[in-house]
Amino acid sequence: MQPGKFITLEGIDGAGKSTHLVWLENYLMSKGITTVTTREPGGTPLGEQLRALLLDQRQTMHAETEVLLMFAARREHLDKVILPTLDKGEWVISDRFTDASFAYQGGGRGVALRKLEELERWVQGSFQPDLTLYFDVSVELGKQRVQSIKAADRFEQEQSAFFQRVRKAYLQRVRQFPERIRLIDAGRPLAEVTASLEAIMSEILSERTQ
Amino acid sequence: MQPGKFITLEGIDGAGKSTHLVWLENYLMSKGITTVTTREPGGTPLGEQLRALLLDQRQTMHAETEVLLMFAARREHLDKVILPTLDKGEWVISDRFTDASFAYQGGGRGVALRKLEELERWVQGSFQPDLTLYFDVSVELGKQRVQSIKAADRFEQEQSAFFQRVRKAYLQRVRQFPERIRLIDAGRPLAEVTASLEAIMSEILSERTQ
Ligand SMILES: Nc1ncnc2c1ncn2[C@@H]1O[C@H](COP(=O)(O)OP(=O)(O)OP(=O)(O)O)[C@@H](O)[C@H]1O
Ligand SMILES: Nc1ncnc2c1ncn2[C@@H]1O[C@H](COP(=O)(O)OP(=O)(O)OP(=O)(O)O)[C@@H](O)[C@H]1O
Ligand SMILES: [Mg+2]
Ligand SMILES: [Mg+2]
Repeated sequence: MQPGKFITLEGIDGAGKSTHLVWLENYLMSKGITTVTTREPGGTPLGEQLRALLLDQRQTMHAETEVLLMFAARREHLDKVILPTLDKGEWVISDRFTDASFAYQGGGRGVALRKLEELERWVQGSFQPDLTLYFDVSVELGKQRVQSIKAADRFEQEQSAFFQRVRKAYLQRVRQFPERIRLIDAGRPLAEVTASLEAIMSEILSERTQ
Repeated sequence: MQPGKFITLEGIDGAGKSTHLVWLENYLMSKGITTVTTREPGGTPLGEQLRALLLDQRQTMHAETEVLLMFAARREHLDKVILPTLDKGEWVISDRFTDASFAYQGGGRGVALRKLEELERWVQGSFQPDLTLYFDVSVELGKQRVQSIKAADRFEQEQSAFFQRVRKAYLQRVRQFPERIRLIDAGRPLAEVTASLEAIMSEILSERTQ
C-alpha cells in the first residue's frame, strides 16, 4: 500500500487556510481520497491543551518556551495522528505545521533560524510535508478579513509590524523550498484563489496517477 | 556583586530531597545567605501548569513530548526565576533540574542521551548548577518512605524496574560529573544524612570565604 500524502496549509491570519482546508477535503473526497484534517498547534488532546496555553492572552512566556511548546505539541501530533494516518494510506491535511514556527517564532519573535532548524531535526528527523500551500495575503487584507469574527488571541493581538515579519519569513521559506511550497496569491477574490488551488491539486493528482 | 550559587537536589522519590531542601534553606539563612527555593517541573505559573499536565495520571504522551515539555518548563524557569535571582546575588535551591531529565526521561523512558544533551545545550547553553546534591537511596526504601503520603502521580505509578533504571542513570551522572555532583548515601537514618549534607555545605562555604 502506498502511504498517504501530507499537505500543510500556511499563511497569516485571514489568508484563507481554514476556508480552503474544507474545500480541499471535499475536493480530495470527490477524487476518492480519504483525508484526515487537523491543525497546529493542536490536533491531539494534549496538543489542544498546549494550544490553549499558547494562545491564552493572559499568558506571558519567553519566545524559546513558545518554540519548545509548539514542538512538544508537534511531536505528539506526529506520533498520534500524522504518521499513523499516512501509514494507513490516508492523506493528512494540516492547518499549519513547521513552516509556521519559522514564520511566527522565527520571523515574528526573532528566534534564530539555526535554533529552529535544530528542533525541527530533533522532532522530525528528515520528515517533511509532501506539499505545502502558502496562501499569501497582505497584512492589511488579512486583518480586515478576520476582524470581528472572534476575539484576538495572543498572536492576533500583535501589531502589524509583527505580521509583516511573519509574512516576510513565509516568503523566505517559499524561496528556500520551491519544490515543496506552492505560493498562492490569496489577495484575489475567493473564486480565483480556489481556482489556483484546484489547478495545483489537479497537477499533483495527475503526476500521482502517471 | 558576586552572583548567587545555584544548588540542585536530585534523587528518586523518597530520597529526601524535599526534607533537605527545607533544611538547606534554614542552614544557609543561618549563614546570612538569602535563598530562593523552587522546583522542577514547575517554578513559574506556566511551569506549574505544565507540571500538572506532566504528572496527570490520565495523560498519555510520547517520551519525546515529555522531554520537550520538561525543557519548555525549564526554559521559563531559567528566564523568570533562576537567572534573575542569581543575578541579584541570591542563591537558588531547586528540587530537581536537568539531571532529572537524564535520569527519568533518559534512564527511565529510554530517550537517547545524545538527544537530551542536544536539548540541554539548546535551552541552557553551557549553564550548569554550581552544586548538585544527589541523594542516593534504594528503590525499595524510597518507595517505603513515600507510600501512603499521597496518591501516585504519572511517574510514581511506574514499576520498580523503571526506578532502577532512573537510579542507575543518576549514578552514571555522578561518575560523569564528579566535580559538580556530590553523592549522599540517603539510605541511612535522617540525622546521619543531614550530617553528611552539613559537612559538604560547610566545606563549600569555607572555599567561598577563602
Ligand atoms: N480570497 C478571499 N476573498 C474574500 N474573503 C476571503 C478570502 N479567503 C478567505 N476569505 C474570508 O476571510 C475570512 C478568513 O478566512 P479563513 O478563516 O479561511 O482564514 P485563515 O487563514 O484560516 O485565518 P486564521 O489564521 O485566523 O484562522 C473568512 O471569513 C473567509 O470567508
Ligand atoms: N534518611 C531518612 N530516613 C528516614 N526517613 C526519611 C529520610 N529522609 C526522608 N525521610 C522521610 O521520607 C519521606 C520522603 O522524603 P522526602 O519527601 O524528603 O523525599 P523526596 O525525595 O522529596 O521525594 P519525592 O520525590 O516523592 O518528593 C518523608 O516522610 C521524610 O520525612
Ligand atoms: Mg483558520
Ligand atoms: Mg519531594
